[in-house]
Amino acid sequence: MYYSKLFGKTVRKAPSDASTASHKLLYQAGFIRESTAGRYFFLPLGQRVQQKIMKVIKEEMDQAGAQEMISPVLHPLELWKETNRTNTTGFELMKVQDRRGAEFALGGTAEEMFVDVVRKFQLSYKDLPFNIYQFSTKFRDELRARGGLLRVREFIMKDAYSFDVDETSFKKKYEKMKKTYTKIFDRLGIPTQIVESDNGYIGGEYCHEFVMEAKQGESKYLFTADGSYAAHQDVAVFLPANKNIDDEMLPLQEIEAIRGTTMEDGVKLHKKPLWQQIKDVLFVDEKGRFILAIIRGDYDVNEIKLKHLTKSIELRHATDDEIKKKINSEPGFISPVNIKKMVDKNVKLLIVADTSLRTIKNAYGGANQKNRDLFNMNIDQDYKPDLEGDIALAKEGYMSKDGKQRLIEKQGIEVGNIFQLGYHYSRLMRDASFIDKDGKAKPYYMGCYGIGIGRTMAALVEKYHDEKGIMWPLAVAPFRVHLISIGKEQTDKDKAEKLYKELCDRNIDVLFDDRDISPGEKFADADLVGIPIRLVISPKTGDKAEYKERNKKEIKIVTINELFNSLTR
Amino acid sequence: MYYSKLFGKTVRKAPSDASTASHKLLYQAGFIRESTAGRYFFLPLGQRVQQKIMKVIKEEMDQAGAQEMISPVLHPLELWKETNRTNTTGFELMKVQDRRGAEFALGGTAEEMFVDVVRKFQLSYKDLPFNIYQFSTKFRDELRARGGLLRVREFIMKDAYSFDVDETSFKKKYEKMKKTYTKIFDRLGIPTQIVESDNGYIGGEYCHEFVMEAKQGESKYLFTADGSYAAHQDVAVFLPANKNIDDEMLPLQEIEAIRGTTMEDGVKLHKKPLWQQIKDVLFVDEKGRFILAIIRGDYDVNEIKLKHLTKSIELRHATDDEIKKKINSEPGFISPVNIKKMVDKNVKLLIVADTSLRTIKNAYGGANQKNRDLFNMNIDQDYKPDLEGDIALAKEGYMSKDGKQRLIEKQGIEVGNIFQLGYHYSRLMRDASFIDKDGKAKPYYMGCYGIGIGRTMAALVEKYHDEKGIMWPLAVAPFRVHLISIGKEQTDKDKAEKLYKELCDRNIDVLFDDRDISPGEKFADADLVGIPIRLVISPKTGDKAEYKERNKKEIKIVTINELFNSLTR
Repeated sequence: MYYSKLFGKTVRKAPSDASTASHKLLYQAGFIRESTAGRYFFLPLGQRVQQKIMKVIKEEMDQAGAQEMISPVLHPLELWKETNRTNTTGFELMKVQDRRGAEFALGGTAEEMFVDVVRKFQLSYKDLPFNIYQFSTKFRDELRARGGLLRVREFIMKDAYSFDVDETSFKKKYEKMKKTYTKIFDRLGIPTQIVESDNGYIGGEYCHEFVMEAKQGESKYLFTADGSYAAHQDVAVFLPANKNIDDEMLPLQEIEAIRGTTMEDGVKLHKKPLWQQIKDVLFVDEKGRFILAIIRGDYDVNEIKLKHLTKSIELRHATDDEIKKKINSEPGFISPVNIKKMVDKNVKLLIVADTSLRTIKNAYGGANQKNRDLFNMNIDQDYKPDLEGDIALAKEGYMSKDGKQRLIEKQGIEVGNIFQLGYHYSRLMRDASFIDKDGKAKPYYMGCYGIGIGRTMAALVEKYHDEKGIMWPLAVAPFRVHLISIGKEQTDKDKAEKLYKELCDRNIDVLFDDRDISPGEKFADADLVGIPIRLVISPKTGDKAEYKERNKKEIKIVTINELFNSLTR
Repeated sequence: MYYSKLFGKTVRKAPSDASTASHKLLYQAGFIRESTAGRYFFLPLGQRVQQKIMKVIKEEMDQAGAQEMISPVLHPLELWKETNRTNTTGFELMKVQDRRGAEFALGGTAEEMFVDVVRKFQLSYKDLPFNIYQFSTKFRDELRARGGLLRVREFIMKDAYSFDVDETSFKKKYEKMKKTYTKIFDRLGIPTQIVESDNGYIGGEYCHEFVMEAKQGESKYLFTADGSYAAHQDVAVFLPANKNIDDEMLPLQEIEAIRGTTMEDGVKLHKKPLWQQIKDVLFVDEKGRFILAIIRGDYDVNEIKLKHLTKSIELRHATDDEIKKKINSEPGFISPVNIKKMVDKNVKLLIVADTSLRTIKNAYGGANQKNRDLFNMNIDQDYKPDLEGDIALAKEGYMSKDGKQRLIEKQGIEVGNIFQLGYHYSRLMRDASFIDKDGKAKPYYMGCYGIGIGRTMAALVEKYHDEKGIMWPLAVAPFRVHLISIGKEQTDKDKAEKLYKELCDRNIDVLFDDRDISPGEKFADADLVGIPIRLVISPKTGDKAEYKERNKKEIKIVTINELFNSLTR
C-alpha cells in the first residue's frame, strides 16, 4: 500500500478531549475517527488491526469447536419481553419501530436471539453440546462515552453462547473456554488476569473477567500475591479482622451527641475508633422498598453484593427528606435499634447487616434522633437484622479469606468475559429445550462468552506505546513493514519502488511511504503509526537497506537478501 | 466439522411462504432461519458461504486498490438532513433516538457517512483518487419482504465510495470498477449482464446494474442480441416506428363518442388503430403539481423517465375526483387540447409529451367531456406540451435505437450496482472538498459501488440447484468435501474417522456425517446441502472411497492416495 494513497494519514494534534494514550495515538496515527460521541469509524489502518484481532479470535474459537454464525442486528422486542430484560438490563436498551409498527431492540447482547434461533430446531441430547458465536455490532446507550475506544456506544463484539445438557457438561466447556480466552489474549500480546466477576442475575462461581492491568481501565480487582485468588471488586471477599470481640457486652446507653452527620464527626466527639461505629446506609430499591444496610464503620457497603442479598435490581440512596418523613429518623443519626417501630405504616423497611458486625462489640452510632447517639449496640441483643451476609467492599490491604495474605488492588481494562447463564434464559423462554435420553424435554444449560474488539485494540495501544507513538505487536500490526524512501533523485525512488514490489511479491504486507516530504516527517509518522519493522532506502544505503524494529533502538544495515531471508523465515 | 455437532441441520419441510428455490433450499439445508419477516440468521453453514462470498469480493476490491474500513451503523440524522435525504430516499429510513435525544438513521446506504469521515481530513489533490469500502449491515424498511434472501429488511452489503479530482479521473475508476465487478461475479460463478440503470437524482451515463437472469428477479431489462445495448427497463430507450407520418394534417374535429373509458373502447368505437390514439395519464407529484403525460396509444408511460423530465420525486395517479373537480375534465376523455383553459385557477398543470407523438398524424382521443372525442389532433398545431421528451416504457420486440435489432426483454436478480454520484453529495455537504493544484478548495467527484451479500447467495442457489438440493460452486461452498460414513461396525466408523482426520490434516474443509442414521438419509442430506464432493466410506469400499461430484452423475471408486492427490492438486 502506498502511503500517498492511504485514506487516513497522520495528524499532529490529538483531539482536545482525548485523555488516554490509546485515544490520542489511534486518532493521530489515522486508525480511528469519531462519528458522534462514542461511535467510531475504523479507518483502513484501524480496520486492518480490527480484522487481525478478529482473525486470532476466530481461529481459537474454531479450534475450540465453536461455530460462527450471525444474527440480525434488530432484535424483536417480544424476545426481550419474554425474559423481562426490557426492564432489567443495566445498559439502556435502544428501541426502534419499523413503519408497520413492529418494535425492535438494537442488540446490546444476544442471549434471547440465540435461544430463539436454537429453539427453531428440534434438538436431541445428541446435538448437544455446541457453542455458536458471532462478530456483530452491539449498542449500549451509555450516558457517557469516554477514553476513545475504551467505553463506546457502538462496537463490534465477539459473543458466543454455549448449550449443554447439564451443569457438569457446561463446566467442562467453561474451563475449555477459559483456556481458549487465555490463548487468544496470549497470541494478541495482552497480559490478562482472570478475575471472578459478577454475573448479575445468577450468582455462582462461573463468571470471570479477563482484565489487563492499566490505570485507564474501569475494572477494579483484588488478588493475592500467590495468584490463588483474584476477583473483581464487585464480588471480592475478604476476612474481616476480629476487633474487641472478647469484650463483655455492656448495656445499651443513649447520650446527647451534638455533632455533624459524618462518621468522622462521631469518632471525634466520642474519641472511639471508627471500626466500633456502625455505618448505616439507607437505600430504596426499584420496588420502593427501603433497605438499611449496616456495616462496621471502617468498611464500605458493596452495592452489588447488597443487591444480590436483597434480590433488588436497582438501588438508590434515600433522600434526607425520606429519612425524616418516611422513616422518621434523622440523617447522620440512623440506627438499626428500634427503627422498625418508627417507620410509617405503609413503609417496608429491611435491615441488612454485614457479617463484620460480628467482629465488634459495644458499637456506637446514632439514635434515630438529631444529636442523640447510642453506645453499646450489640447485634442480636439490641437489634435484629432481617438479612445478614457479606455486603462489604474489599479493598487493598484487607486480609484474604485464607487469612494468610493481604489483598492487592489494581485497576484494569476488561477485555473479555465468560459467564455462566445456567437455566436462566432457557427457563424464561418457552420451548427452549432439548429431548433428553429419557424422551423428556429439558431446558439446556447455557453459558456466554464475550470479547469487545475495539476495546481490545485500545488495550493493545495502552500496553504497547511510547512517547513517539504506537508499537504494534506483529500479530495485530496493520502492516509488517513500513518502507521509507528518502532521496529526491529518480534513482533513489526507483530503488525503493523496486524493493516495495519485491516485498509485495513475497506476500509481505508493506506500507510504502512514497511521499515527497522530509525524512524527519516520514520517521515521525513511522514511529506514530507503529508498524513493527521500519526499512529505509536512501542514497546512503546503496544497494542495502536500513532496518529498525519499532520497539528497539538498534539500526542495522542489511542486504536485500538478508532482509528477504529474515522476513520469509 | 462433525455433522452430528453442527448447529443447523437439515429439515424435510420448507416454510409454507417460501416461493423461490433459494428460500426453500437454504432453509431446508440449514443455511438460514428467519428472525422476523425479512431479517435472517445465517446459521454456521450459511455464514461460511457468506464469508466466502465476502472473501472473493474483498480480494478483488483490494486488488483494484480499494481500502476497507468501517463506519458506525447509526448515522447522525443531521448528515441525512444536510443532503435532504430524510425526505427523498426511496426506501423508508428507520430512525432511532438515544436517551439524550440525539437522532440517528439506521444506515440504508452510507454516502453521507463516508463524505463525513473524508471531510475530517484536509485533503490535497495528491491524496486523490481513492476508493474506500466496507462490509456492513444495511437496513431497508421494505413494506414487503419476499423471496427469502432476495428482498430483505436487513442485510450485509459491500458498499464502496470513490473520490476523484474530476469526472475524467472518475471515468477511469468507474471502468476499472466495472471490470472488478465482472471479475468478482465470474469468480463467484454468477453469469451477469451489465445493464444501464437509473441513478435517481443524477441521471447521466454512468450507472449500471449487474443482473443475473432469473425469473425470480425483480429487475426487468432489455438488450440487443449483439450485446451492444443493455439497459434496465427504468431507463431503456428504443426507436419509435414512424406510422402515418406522411399523411396530411387534417383539421381538428369534435364528435360524439358514446364509449367506455379505456383505450380499447376508443379503438372499438372509431375502428382506428391503437397507435393513432393519444394516451393521457394524469399524475400528481409531491409538490401537488398535476402532470399530464401524453404518449402514443400503443406505448406506456415510464414513470422513472417522467420523474426525471419533470424533476419530481414522487408521482401518483390523479383520482377521478381530481380529474373532474380540479382539472374540470372527464376520466377516460382527457385531452391535451384546450385543457389548460379548463383547470382551476390555483391548479398548476404541466403537459408532458412523449417524442413518439411526432411519429403519428391526426391522432384521436377524448375531448375533456364525457362522450365527446376529438379527431385529428396534431402536436404544435392543436396542443403545445410544456415539456417534450422520452417518457416511453421500452418492451420486448421494440426496435433498438440503432434501428437494426429488436429489443429482448428478460427478468433478473440485481446482484450489484455501480453509480456515478458526481458532485451531488460533495456540493450538498459543507467542506466536502480537497485543495487542488491551484490552491483552491474544490468538491470531489464521487462514485459508489454496492453488492448485497445475501442476495448474491440467493442468486447462487437459484442458479445452482436441482430437484434434490443445492449445488455450490467450489469458490463459495461451505465445505469442499462431504464425507459420509456407512456401516455399523466400529471398524467402518474408525476407517471414516481416520480419513476425516487425514483430510483435516491436509487443510481440506470436510463436513463429516458421523451420525447413526440410515445411508439414504445421509445421501439425501448431502444432496440437499450441496457440497461439491461427496465421499463415502462403507464396508463395500474396502480401503478405497466412493467419490462423487454433486453436479455429476458418475460415481468413482478411488484409492485414498488418488483422492489426496486430486484434492491437493
